[in-house]
Amino acid sequence: MGEEQFYVKKRLKNVPPVRLIVVSFAIVILVGAILLTLPISSRSGMPTGFIDSLFTATSATCVTGLVVFDTWTHWNLLGQVIIILLIQIGGLGVITFTTGFSMLVRRKIGLRDLQLATENTSGDTINIKHLIKIILIFTFFCEMTGAVLLMFRFVPQFGAKGIWIAAFTAISAFCNAGFDILGFVMKDGNLIPYVSDPLVCLTVGGLIVIGGLGFVVISDIYNAQLLPRIRRRKPIHLNFHSTLVLMMTGILIVSGTVLFLVCEYDNTLLGMNFGTQLNASLFQSISARTAGFCTVDIAREHDFTKIITVILMFIGASPAGTGGGIKTTTFIVLLATVASVMRGNEETTLLKRRIDKSTVYRALAILSGAATMVFITTGIILSADPDVTGVDALFEATSGFGTVGLTAGVTSTLSWISKLAVTLTMFIGRVGPVSLGLALTIHKGHRCAGTILPEGKVIVG
Amino acid sequence: MGEEQFYVKKRLKNVPPVRLIVVSFAIVILVGAILLTLPISSRSGMPTGFIDSLFTATSATCVTGLVVFDTWTHWNLLGQVIIILLIQIGGLGVITFTTGFSMLVRRKIGLRDLQLATENTSGDTINIKHLIKIILIFTFFCEMTGAVLLMFRFVPQFGAKGIWIAAFTAISAFCNAGFDILGFVMKDGNLIPYVSDPLVCLTVGGLIVIGGLGFVVISDIYNAQLLPRIRRRKPIHLNFHSTLVLMMTGILIVSGTVLFLVCEYDNTLLGMNFGTQLNASLFQSISARTAGFCTVDIAREHDFTKIITVILMFIGASPAGTGGGIKTTTFIVLLATVASVMRGNEETTLLKRRIDKSTVYRALAILSGAATMVFITTGIILSADPDVTGVDALFEATSGFGTVGLTAGVTSTLSWISKLAVTLTMFIGRVGPVSLGLALTIHKGHRCAGTILPEGKVIVG
Ligand SMILES: [K+]
Ligand SMILES: [K+]
Repeated sequence: MGEEQFYVKKRLKNVPPVRLIVVSFAIVILVGAILLTLPISSRSGMPTGFIDSLFTATSATCVTGLVVFDTWTHWNLLGQVIIILLIQIGGLGVITFTTGFSMLVRRKIGLRDLQLATENTSGDTINIKHLIKIILIFTFFCEMTGAVLLMFRFVPQFGAKGIWIAAFTAISAFCNAGFDILGFVMKDGNLIPYVSDPLVCLTVGGLIVIGGLGFVVISDIYNAQLLPRIRRRKPIHLNFHSTLVLMMTGILIVSGTVLFLVCEYDNTLLGMNFGTQLNASLFQSISARTAGFCTVDIAREHDFTKIITVILMFIGASPAGTGGGIKTTTFIVLLATVASVMRGNEETTLLKRRIDKSTVYRALAILSGAATMVFITTGIILSADPDVTGVDALFEATSGFGTVGLTAGVTSTLSWISKLAVTLTMFIGRVGPVSLGLALTIHKGHRCAGTILPEGKVIVG
Repeated sequence: MGEEQFYVKKRLKNVPPVRLIVVSFAIVILVGAILLTLPISSRSGMPTGFIDSLFTATSATCVTGLVVFDTWTHWNLLGQVIIILLIQIGGLGVITFTTGFSMLVRRKIGLRDLQLATENTSGDTINIKHLIKIILIFTFFCEMTGAVLLMFRFVPQFGAKGIWIAAFTAISAFCNAGFDILGFVMKDGNLIPYVSDPLVCLTVGGLIVIGGLGFVVISDIYNAQLLPRIRRRKPIHLNFHSTLVLMMTGILIVSGTVLFLVCEYDNTLLGMNFGTQLNASLFQSISARTAGFCTVDIAREHDFTKIITVILMFIGASPAGTGGGIKTTTFIVLLATVASVMRGNEETTLLKRRIDKSTVYRALAILSGAATMVFITTGIILSADPDVTGVDALFEATSGFGTVGLTAGVTSTLSWISKLAVTLTMFIGRVGPVSLGLALTIHKGHRCAGTILPEGKVIVG
């Protein structure tokens, strides 16, 4: 498909790769939903309502993790297999689409280090087959390692069933899905029984972080740092994008940990020793930005802790990974712009680089689109379910949009209108930013109508 | 004071006009607070606590309208006179500072129609005396007209006391202060007893809108439209800034009215006939963006209505007027940027004009600063007063920052920590955007460090 073809079409939905992403996700979700309605998928042997099945399939495929039923209690083994397959397909789909897109425009984006995936290619043609192969190997390697580590805990505890639980949890963690099948230990308890268990928390946390960094960054770390060391050569610097992503991930994890600890030490963390409190805060900070596992009861948190979680969920993970939200890079570009304005600079500067206006504008568009989506969903929940408080509705809407999957405990009690609204939010939160980024990059530079207009002077603020 | 002097200093607080604004507001507030603590100002003849007096003086000077005591019940005539003087000084101060600033940079801003204020001036020198004279005449003309209209209602109802009530209400309305002295009709009732009274609602609403448009726009309407008609000449087009402000004010008033009506017809508007419902919704829409009067009980509103009110309060009024918030122009510039990005444009376009990058960046900085301030205040209220719900805390913080003065009924119950936090928010919400705009415009173009840096490529979204 020639690039020229893109330039002709102007509307987002008409850009071929965007249509491909939207349609393929919709088909996977619909097939999953139909399979989940069947009596053969549920533990009770009864059919499941379509809205609840659609909600579950969307939550799995969009790797969100919000559930209307406890995954272990409601679904039988087949149901759970369908769910983990949807998670795996959804997770891989997003990685492949976003990485492929980054490569498609890699000269514009300036990514020099996708050699790993492109060593068999020449010029502008991308070897999609080779890219998918590399992504598959990397994904399964991470998930396998995670599963083996988790088996050390789950097999002694649950016997053979522990193998299935370890595999499910590892896939769900790497894909940042947040689904768990530990409902038989504690109903709707997610990882709460393992709050004081560093093996489970650190393994799951590690998988979440690696899945959330994005394949572009992983690939850069491999090519610039690991491969040279293996070949006993001098490692080279990480590129600008990777440096930003790693820096922001570190800052957000640490500040989130501190904030959770300070806000909750006298509440949900009460009665734990300091090591466990730290472990729980670290895990909650990592998980809040997109994974959606929890080791404490969110419903009992202070409203202020919930608001901090909403902000972390809204920021989300990094581009081209399995995470959601507006993305760490969007957030830092906006922050850097504000800081530059405050210093009286004309240009956005970040780590001694200049950020182009078009990147800043795009970040602003993503922020606004996300805020609007969260606002509308919050409004629908509050209107359709008057018993839900404002903060809990905001929490649920942000969790859906950021494909996080944390809940203040209200998901299963929502009316069908709110469930449909959250379903739509999960879908848009998953395919929206990817599609928008793709369409905008393709459009970039081909509409300059504004440059011939006279400048309009206006006072702001 | 030479303009060169500005270029040397880099930090906001060191820019002379910024220091002037901050210091003069602080002095007025402190003097007011000390006068209000005295026993001679209270109805009971007892001294008032300093934090409560400081809160009241800040609320009056920053024309916010949040109160810890009912103004009629707690303060005697002297106390009320002090409060209305603080409101008048605060309101006039902001108009004068912002208008003077717009004139100082009028060539950069491109305002061609401040002839009214500058006809006696030549070159860059501003005739501040003449400007103040014009603003004073205009202010007193509006307030007098409003007071006379309100006397038609209040004098028959309350006798001679009605003259004082009409004058107080008219000044409070034009300055967008939201203070009322109708507590003897209904305690903490504000204008609720007049919900079905078009004379009061439309007079107060009209004063609010005129005060909120900003003197720059008023001056443009006078010079471009009124004066030519009076002199039987052809009126000329309003400038870009005025057109935007009028358009946005209209759109926000109408959409706010519709949203209030739809959200509250079965709640706080229940039992009223449609005319009264429409009157109440229109008044609430006008008042929410910065004035802070109310004709319905906010505390009883749905959470979703409160959230819509929070958004209207956050947007606020227009620059160079008595209103607060991020301002209507900031909001439309951000919206236009998002719309331009979505259409694949490189430039922000609005009404067939191009908006400069520096204006967009500044709008983004104002949005972020405001959101951060509201977030921090909300956090402090939620931490210091655990009984306040998340939505009510957000409501209170936004109301303080946007100098609106609406409350969900929690102001008087706040702890002293929250009261101090809201006091600081009111102050920053009032002098912050003015100072920032001033400092940034002065800095503009004198720091271009970014342009010599290499571009940093980053994927957002
Ligand atoms: K998730
Ligand atoms: K006000």
